[in-house]
Parts: sequence; structure tokens; C-alpha cells
Amino acid sequence: MITLYTYNTINGQVAELVLHCLEQPHQIKTVDLMKGEQRSAEFLKMNPSGRIPVLVDPAERDGRDKPLVVSQTGAIVTYLGRQYGDAWYPQNESSRSQVDEWIWFQLTDISTNLFNNFYLKSLIEVPQPEAANVLRDRALDFYQVFDQALKVRAYLTGSDMTLADLVSFPVVHASAKYGLTDRYAGLKRWYRDMQADLKIRSWLDRLR
Amino acid sequence: MITLYTYNTINGQVAELVLHCLEQPHQIKTVDLMKGEQRSAEFLKMNPSGRIPVLVDPAERDGRDKPLVVSQTGAIVTYLGRQYGDAWYPQNESSRSQVDEWIWFQLTDISTNLFNNFYLKSLIEVPQPEAANVLRDRALDFYQVFDQALKVRAYLTGSDMTLADLVSFPVVHASAKYGLTDRYAGLKRWYRDMQADLKIRSWLDRLR
Repeated sequence: MITLYTYNTINGQVAELVLHCLEQPHQIKTVDLMKGEQRSAEFLKMNPSGRIPVLVDPAERDGRDKPLVVSQTGAIVTYLGRQYGDAWYPQNESSRSQVDEWIWFQLTDISTNLFNNFYLKSLIEVPQPEAANVLRDRALDFYQVFDQALKVRAYLTGSDMTLADLVSFPVVHASAKYGLTDRYAGLKRWYRDMQADLKIRSWLDRLR
Repeated sequence: MITLYTYNTINGQVAELVLHCLEQPHQIKTVDLMKGEQRSAEFLKMNPSGRIPVLVDPAERDGRDKPLVVSQTGAIVTYLGRQYGDAWYPQNESSRSQVDEWIWFQLTDISTNLFNNFYLKSLIEVPQPEAANVLRDRALDFYQVFDQALKVRAYLTGSDMTLADLVSFPVVHASAKYGLTDRYAGLKRWYRDMQADLKIRSWLDRLR
């Protein structure tokens, strides 16, 4: 069975939501970041950069016939899409590259900068709240592009929900709590529709 | 023929280097960021987020039978890898997911934070040099993981150069100029070997 080493961060949620929606049986192993478990020798062997999430899939073998280990949220979700998510990760090149485009947009320009907002405010010795706000605002400005797209189509790449929407959901969910997405009508409509989806709803119930 | 809309930034260089090494005939259209050409109506139609690089490939058609347009550096290079880069982007899942892992690591944790370093120092009204240095140092600390890997193998994922090495090269090339990678023996050995590669060398000659 797939094992996900994770913690309740946005990126951890992204990997969990994708596993949940792709209906892949999996077990969760919590890596308590507050206790520094991501720096244990055992964990660093799986991901030398000491971060979650990390996926271990015994159904796929690496070059030494050991279970495949993948880190990096983007690499994990696209791996899952290719292996188990036909309906979520279209195979034709034109659609796949569009899904990838939104996944990259979300995880680099938005998630990374929202993480940096948190990092510069809360995780360093001398907090840098002004710079943190600059990066947060830059990330939120990018949501304008998401908003534009979601005003003319149901989901990020068209009429069907894809991996791109799943990857974006936990970030918008966290931002919406603080009212950060209020100015975006298209994004808010999408967020409501996503929350109403049965699979997403059952994941949210588990999250609570 | 493929058209790359680009400018001489690190991400622009990444897309160009990949096209060059995959030996894909292409034309370059310069989008002059200093003149704000990325905000022209014509360019925003291709990429509403107003950033380079953008790839247009007439060999692949979108849902409306128009040439495929892809933005986001990571989406562009993995698209090129799938279409034209068999030798650079292994098809077996275990190898591909490892290449992806390094591409994501490079483009999210390193490139994005080095860009933020520049952004917070030079592109905003009230520069935030302290926060910029925090993010730069965070990015450079991550190179320790690259260094560890490159002490035990020739290239990031093994004995062969892959898309992951190509994606990482322009960033390391720019960092090395400022001595930022001097403390990493493995990374420096790899950087020397990469520079000695014929394809990379011919790209560097063009860059000068």
C-alpha cells in the first residue's frame, strides 16, 4: 500500500487530497515538524532536504528493486496522475501541458510565495513582516489570472475537474479563511463548486 | 517551427538551453521586459500572467486546432522532454519521477527564492535587502542537497545527464559568477563537467 509521510501543511494537504480523489488506498505516517522529526536520520534517508510530503509506492520499483520514493509535491501529484489518475490527468499532449501549466503556476508563484509569507513572519529569528506582505500580495495578485480563467470556464483548464484544480484547492481553502480571495468572483464561484463536490467534501470532513 | 517568446532571464535561459540540447529548430522572439512588452495585449493573450518564457509549437494542436501555447518554465521543459527528449527524460516511471523531483526542487525552492532575492532588492519601491538575503541563503542552503547527490554520482539522477541537469545549469551558472556555490565541492565538479559538455559549451558561446 502507498505510504504518505506528511504533516498538516498546505503541501501535505495537496498530496493527501490527490490520493483521496484518485481513490488510492494509502496509509498516512505523520512527520511532526514541530518536534523536528523531518530531521531524523530515517526521514533524511528518504528526502535529504528534510521536508514533507514524501510518497512511497511499493507498486513501482526503483533501479535497485526497492519501493519508489518521491518527494516534492509537484513530482508526487504528477506521478500519481500518470499512474492512477487517467480521468484527472489527460494523456493528450495539448491537455496535459495545460494542466501542468496551472500546477506549476499554483505551486511556484502562489504556494511558494504564500509559504514565504509565513516563513518571513513566523519561522525566522528576526521577522520581516513588510517583505512577507510584499510576497503575499504578489501571490494574491496572481490569483487574478486564475479568476479570469474561472469566469469563462467551470474549472481551470475547461469543463472537467483535473489535477490542476485539486492541487489548487487546499491553497485557496486556506486563503479563503482569511478573506484573501474575496475580491475574485470567478475564483469564489469555483471554490464553492469545488466544496460541493462529493469527493472534496468527504476530504474536508476528514480534515476537520 | 517552434517559437520561444523569451528574454535573457534565468527562466528564459532554461527554456532556451533545453531547446538547444534537444536539438529542436526554433526561433526566438524577444519580449523586452525593460520596455514592458510582456504587458502588451498580444502577449497577454498568450500568457495572461504576463511573464516569459512562452513556447508555441505548431506541431501540436490545441482543442481549437490552433498551435499549442505553453507558459511556465517547468511545464515548457517537461512538455519538450515528453515530445522531443527521449534520451533526456526517461519514460520508465521510477526514473521519470526522480528527474521530476529534481526539476521541481530546482524551480520551486531554488529558482523562485533566488528570483525573490532579486525582486525584494531591485524590483520593488521600498527594497527589503534583509529579507532578500534570508531567502537567498535559504535557496543556497538547499544546494547542500544537490552537492550531496553530486558527490556520489555524475549527474543529479545518476550516470546520465537528464532534463534535471539542464534545468539546473543556468541557475548554477548565474550563482557561480558571484561565488555563491564555492562551498559545494560536488556541485562545482558537476558545474565543470557540464561546462565541458559540447552541447552546453555551444550554448554558452551563443549566450556571450
